[in-house]
Amino acid sequence: MDAEEFRRRGKEMIDYVAEYLENVEQRPVYPDLEPGYLRSLIPSEAPLEPESYEDIMKDMERVIMPGITHWHSPYFFAYFPAASSYPAMLADMLSTAIGCIGFSWAASPACTELETVMLDWLGKMLQLPESFIAGTDGQGGGVIQGTASEATLMSLLAARCKAVRRVQTYTSDKSEVEIFSQLVAYTSEQVCATLGTTPSCAFDQITELGPICNGENMWMHIDAAYAGSAFICPEFRPLLNGIEGHSTVGLNGFWYLKIFFCLSTPVNRVKKRTDIIGAFKMDPLYLKHENQESGLVTDYRHWQIPLGRRFRSLKLWFVFRMYGLQGLQAHIRKQVALAKEFESLVRADKRFEICAEVVLGLVCFRLKGSNELNQNLLKKITNSREIHLVPCQLSGRFVLRFVICARTTESRHIQQAWQHITQLTFELLQEPNH
Amino acid sequence: MDAEEFRRRGKEMIDYVAEYLENVEQRPVYPDLEPGYLRSLIPSEAPLEPESYEDIMKDMERVIMPGITHWHSPYFFAYFPAASSYPAMLADMLSTAIGCIGFSWAASPACTELETVMLDWLGKMLQLPESFIAGTDGQGGGVIQGTASEATLMSLLAARCKAVRRVQTYTSDKSEVEIFSQLVAYTSEQVCATLGTTPSCAFDQITELGPICNGENMWMHIDAAYAGSAFICPEFRPLLNGIEGHSTVGLNGFWYLKIFFCLSTPVNRVKKRTDIIGAFKMDPLYLKHENQESGLVTDYRHWQIPLGRRFRSLKLWFVFRMYGLQGLQAHIRKQVALAKEFESLVRADKRFEICAEVVLGLVCFRLKGSNELNQNLLKKITNSREIHLVPCQLSGRFVLRFVICARTTESRHIQQAWQHITQLTFELLQEPNH
Repeated sequence: MDAEEFRRRGKEMIDYVAEYLENVEQRPVYPDLEPGYLRSLIPSEAPLEPESYEDIMKDMERVIMPGITHWHSPYFFAYFPAASSYPAMLADMLSTAIGCIGFSWAASPACTELETVMLDWLGKMLQLPESFIAGTDGQGGGVIQGTASEATLMSLLAARCKAVRRVQTYTSDKSEVEIFSQLVAYTSEQVCATLGTTPSCAFDQITELGPICNGENMWMHIDAAYAGSAFICPEFRPLLNGIEGHSTVGLNGFWYLKIFFCLSTPVNRVKKRTDIIGAFKMDPLYLKHENQESGLVTDYRHWQIPLGRRFRSLKLWFVFRMYGLQGLQAHIRKQVALAKEFESLVRADKRFEICAEVVLGLVCFRLKGSNELNQNLLKKITNSREIHLVPCQLSGRFVLRFVICARTTESRHIQQAWQHITQLTFELLQEPNH
Repeated sequence: MDAEEFRRRGKEMIDYVAEYLENVEQRPVYPDLEPGYLRSLIPSEAPLEPESYEDIMKDMERVIMPGITHWHSPYFFAYFPAASSYPAMLADMLSTAIGCIGFSWAASPACTELETVMLDWLGKMLQLPESFIAGTDGQGGGVIQGTASEATLMSLLAARCKAVRRVQTYTSDKSEVEIFSQLVAYTSEQVCATLGTTPSCAFDQITELGPICNGENMWMHIDAAYAGSAFICPEFRPLLNGIEGHSTVGLNGFWYLKIFFCLSTPVNRVKKRTDIIGAFKMDPLYLKHENQESGLVTDYRHWQIPLGRRFRSLKLWFVFRMYGLQGLQAHIRKQVALAKEFESLVRADKRFEICAEVVLGLVCFRLKGSNELNQNLLKKITNSREIHLVPCQLSGRFVLRFVICARTTESRHIQQAWQHITQLTFELLQEPNH
């Protein structure tokens, strides 16, 4: 495929993508097929000679689309929002075309520098304390991690490294592994200090946890993977109160903003960049460059587990500028309002109960009654394939999670979803066993 | 931005990308600027209100492009090949548009199943033993990891988990951390058993290492991050001989094929999938699905550190089919031939020496003489910005690495690069200090 053919195929692909996203709500949101369906539809080996592009695109509808759970359907209410916006997609195309690997400043200066500045923009949007901002000579700063799990793992490793060094300053005869065996990580049932847990979007009291961590000289990591981005709205920002006083804190999150960024934008923020760099520094000769001696340079490979990294901050740049802070706030408020609308519908039906406070875009609800009853209701919902949601367990109870996910979900989808749920409930309660 | 505007902007972006890649060789391959250049070119905070798309695209040339190291310039000979092909870019657009997160089979069956089958295709292209193939009921199989570092880390964690379990079967009173302190990982100067090291593309003798690992019941991990993909050519496949006999082996790699796939396609292959899954299994209720009980289902979240994962196998599918095995082999052979061409040029000039056997696309060379002399030559090359390469250290000697990287590098670029290097050498040797 040469550049000319790419121009033609690329424009066809733009139309295919636009068509897909405009009409995704007409596809069944959850696929109806058996595990292993795909293997029998395609050859068991790669072709020796090139195939035609037309044949591959035909197979998109024959092989791939029947097996897709459509995360961007407005009837998708499962897990948490994934990621899609047109500006982010355009930025993604640019990032792929530039195709640099930003493991060091020299490997592509714009890739590193735009990331630093975009995470400062984000830090200011979140009204983080000055100490979290890189600025021109700050000690803090942020990094885009590949996934939220990596962000948490990085924080954990950095905390361990820091603790080991502290112990070694007063007991130089102890080996690392001996010290490891004495380290303690405190977690709750949901892992670490969390703002917006996955099952129910619950919030830990950072203002209470913080002083304890400070007093005991403990690293505090806050996971705000889902809720973090909502803090760009002043009305939600108080949920983050309490991070100011900490000597050491990691903060990851921003799934919500991923609605705009597409995948892969959890970020880690640290107050002291040396804390996180200390755990991971690696400097082989082939990665050294003249400017790294200057102290002005960030080499992000020291901030993460992977060596390589894409030019991911382009997405933030496009999205921040094309929506503006007010546009992003408006979107978050709309998602929350839709969740509140669903909550009202549930509360108005006495057969149902709300199982956790609705703060952002997640509504936890269930039929009053046994877990089995709710399991059967979810089975009916899943099998109908008109809407898609997943359960969680709260204090031993089987609960249904309804999350506003797609960027294109509107009030009419909420109303239809609720009508559908009540219809299935009606059928369920008619069945002889109930 | 609505779908209509996306159609328009998307097509403009396709033209921008095609134009960029067609003419990238006319840009200076390595940027000429000081650390911190970018911050002063853009505002210090995100805009409150949306900006125009035209303004953002204007800033691409004003702010971003001057700070790019052009990895896809045919004059880029640094590090290792990154990643670019037109079919891979098209697949990437699709993957972004579908935007599913494939942490479980149910979260998007096609995402999981295509990955399993594509890695079987790749396994067969590499003529891996049958035990590495998933098939319909195999115990082996592959997974696409985010980066090569994660692939290696996964293997290490899986090996540790397996060793701890083995020790616990005969000493049940020992804690995990006590066992950790007794575990030993054997590495060479380049980390683990490696096929194609980063500094010089050296190859470990797997046929010798293998029986030792087998005899001692050790997990063997082979890093073939750079060289792995070349094994799809029968003439390079013998370098992989020796993996057949192992009870446990991890294999990651395929940077070379990344030329076609764009970023993020290192894969881990295992002979026994339960070994790798054991270290990472996590099953909260909200990720459970009906089909997982069937035993037919792969939930890739257990194979990796992150929870989320993109639909990355689409790239493999597009690339395997649009190039065919023969097209991929032809490309690898061309890259190797270009490296051999450069090697011949170096060998014909008695002032230079070749520092390591040229097996694939990397040529390690230096001026006969001091490290300082070679450092000065590299400085001249870097400052000229006509070609870009990085050094390595081999047995205490400062060595220049010349890697065939871009898909579009041709003989004329090699010839020009060599002419440029000899011209700078001539100037260097004229200087008073020499």
